[in-house]
Amino acid sequence: MISVKDKVRFVETDMMGVAHHANYLRWFEMGRVAYLRTCGINLLDLLAEDIVFPITEVNAKYKNPLTFDDEFEIQVTMQDLNRAKMDFAYKIIRSKDQAVCVEGMTRNLFTNKDGKIVRLPAKWFEKIQKVAAQDKMQA
Amino acid sequence: MISVKDKVRFVETDMMGVAHHANYLRWFEMGRVAYLRTCGINLLDLLAEDIVFPITEVNAKYKNPLTFDDEFEIQVTMQDLNRAKMDFAYKIIRSKDQAVCVEGMTRNLFTNKDGKIVRLPAKWFEKIQKVAAQDKMQA
Amino acid sequence: MISVKDKVRFVETDMMGVAHHANYLRWFEMGRVAYLRTCGINLLDLLAEDIVFPITEVNAKYKNPLTFDDEFEIQVTMQDLNRAKMDFAYKIIRSKDQAVCVEGMTRNLFTNKDGKIVRLPAKWFEKIQKVAAQDKMQA
Amino acid sequence: MISVKDKVRFVETDMMGVAHHANYLRWFEMGRVAYLRTCGINLLDLLAEDIVFPITEVNAKYKNPLTFDDEFEIQVTMQDLNRAKMDFAYKIIRSKDQAVCVEGMTRNLFTNKDGKIVRLPAKWFEKIQKVAAQDKMQA
Repeated sequence: MISVKDKVRFVETDMMGVAHHANYLRWFEMGRVAYLRTCGINLLDLLAEDIVFPITEVNAKYKNPLTFDDEFEIQVTMQDLNRAKMDFAYKIIRSKDQAVCVEGMTRNLFTNKDGKIVRLPAKWFEKIQKVAAQDKMQA
Repeated sequence: MISVKDKVRFVETDMMGVAHHANYLRWFEMGRVAYLRTCGINLLDLLAEDIVFPITEVNAKYKNPLTFDDEFEIQVTMQDLNRAKMDFAYKIIRSKDQAVCVEGMTRNLFTNKDGKIVRLPAKWFEKIQKVAAQDKMQA
Repeated sequence: MISVKDKVRFVETDMMGVAHHANYLRWFEMGRVAYLRTCGINLLDLLAEDIVFPITEVNAKYKNPLTFDDEFEIQVTMQDLNRAKMDFAYKIIRSKDQAVCVEGMTRNLFTNKDGKIVRLPAKWFEKIQKVAAQDKMQA
Repeated sequence: MISVKDKVRFVETDMMGVAHHANYLRWFEMGRVAYLRTCGINLLDLLAEDIVFPITEVNAKYKNPLTFDDEFEIQVTMQDLNRAKMDFAYKIIRSKDQAVCVEGMTRNLFTNKDGKIVRLPAKWFEKIQKVAAQDKMQA
């Protein structure tokens, strides 16, 4: 599991006084970027080899709100990985009381820049797999 | 079905050259607001009676991208409605070729401002039900 | 003057119950895009000829708030134009009472994709100038 | 001077491949919140005494771009402070080469929730003044 901490920005609140629900997708993305960084993968390196990985699915269940300036932790684990796709699972935890605020998942496919599905080359796949294997052992 | 049209703003694009996936939640929300407006319901009126309706679940499947300045249509239908919750279904359609870009759903619960679940008072429920009944006939 | 109408989205509000001040830059941008569209210029056409026009300056003065679902008008006029830069002036007007909510300006330079300053080719410049000349007459 | 570090999120990029210019206002805000936190002031404490401090002016000059995943530093100093208003000055510095990316300022007025201008009570003013005095000595 990879974990990133951040705080709710003022701009991320809405008139109900809580963090707007669309922000959690941005936070999932921050977690995903951190996960891949831990694998030694930078989006720009993949791009340079004409590999992108568009989101094809997002699910989120909202259980508890975050409010302005709340510290939270984004927990990311690999749920399913093969050379065609990555499924990540997320938990957003409120630091002050460890409440689970949101649980979710995303699916990324590997494609080229024209949107054609490709298989992730072995050198990248193995890097991700190594980190993902640790997720499995912890599960 | 309620339908709203809009265009992809420049700020809504990302470095992949497409509308960022988190924007679709904002567009779902615009559709939801328009749907309730059609029902004769304004969020502020509900608020004045201490009723809010937080999102508790979001799902989205991404099928085709939208790019800068693309016109799109947000189609909203009521999928399930009772006095405890509303489930909306959404399609985002690209105007130029009628491609379905994203399909999704959201669930709202009715609560008071303290987050306690309430039953939607009949006068509001009936307004929504009247519009939702037309969705059912069209389905 | 080019004018665009829109409404404050729920996501654009903040916990103070008003449209967050950063949104006005997005609305200025929508006005700018509409202005150039009126000139017969699409950002993508310029890009295809390796011309971009990054923002180098933004000013905004906030006079009255917009709240959720408020309709507003973005009024855009060309303040200064030459083949090196464009200065636009903006007013955001609240439709219900014609109150001026925000006044501002932006400066764009013309550059190539590597950020080197270029002079806007005559064919594009003349298109913008034609519309801008009408702004001057109205002023 | 108060300083906060962060990284450019993927969602903050636009189709030009750089951080969209509206994000800098969000980063200024993060710096402002950190500054006031250093003063021992939390927005919610002021709110509880019916004091808010809306933005009435923003200026930003863009000198160098930030791109995805770039680390940056938000430097905030108090430029002018009295019991009616606060003017903050900002620099956004790119960590890898210390380039100044954006310089700007904001003005906040102190008002009550109805938008009426108030004078900041002495107990709050003194807290801010103590930190601001150090800015002046460093200048």
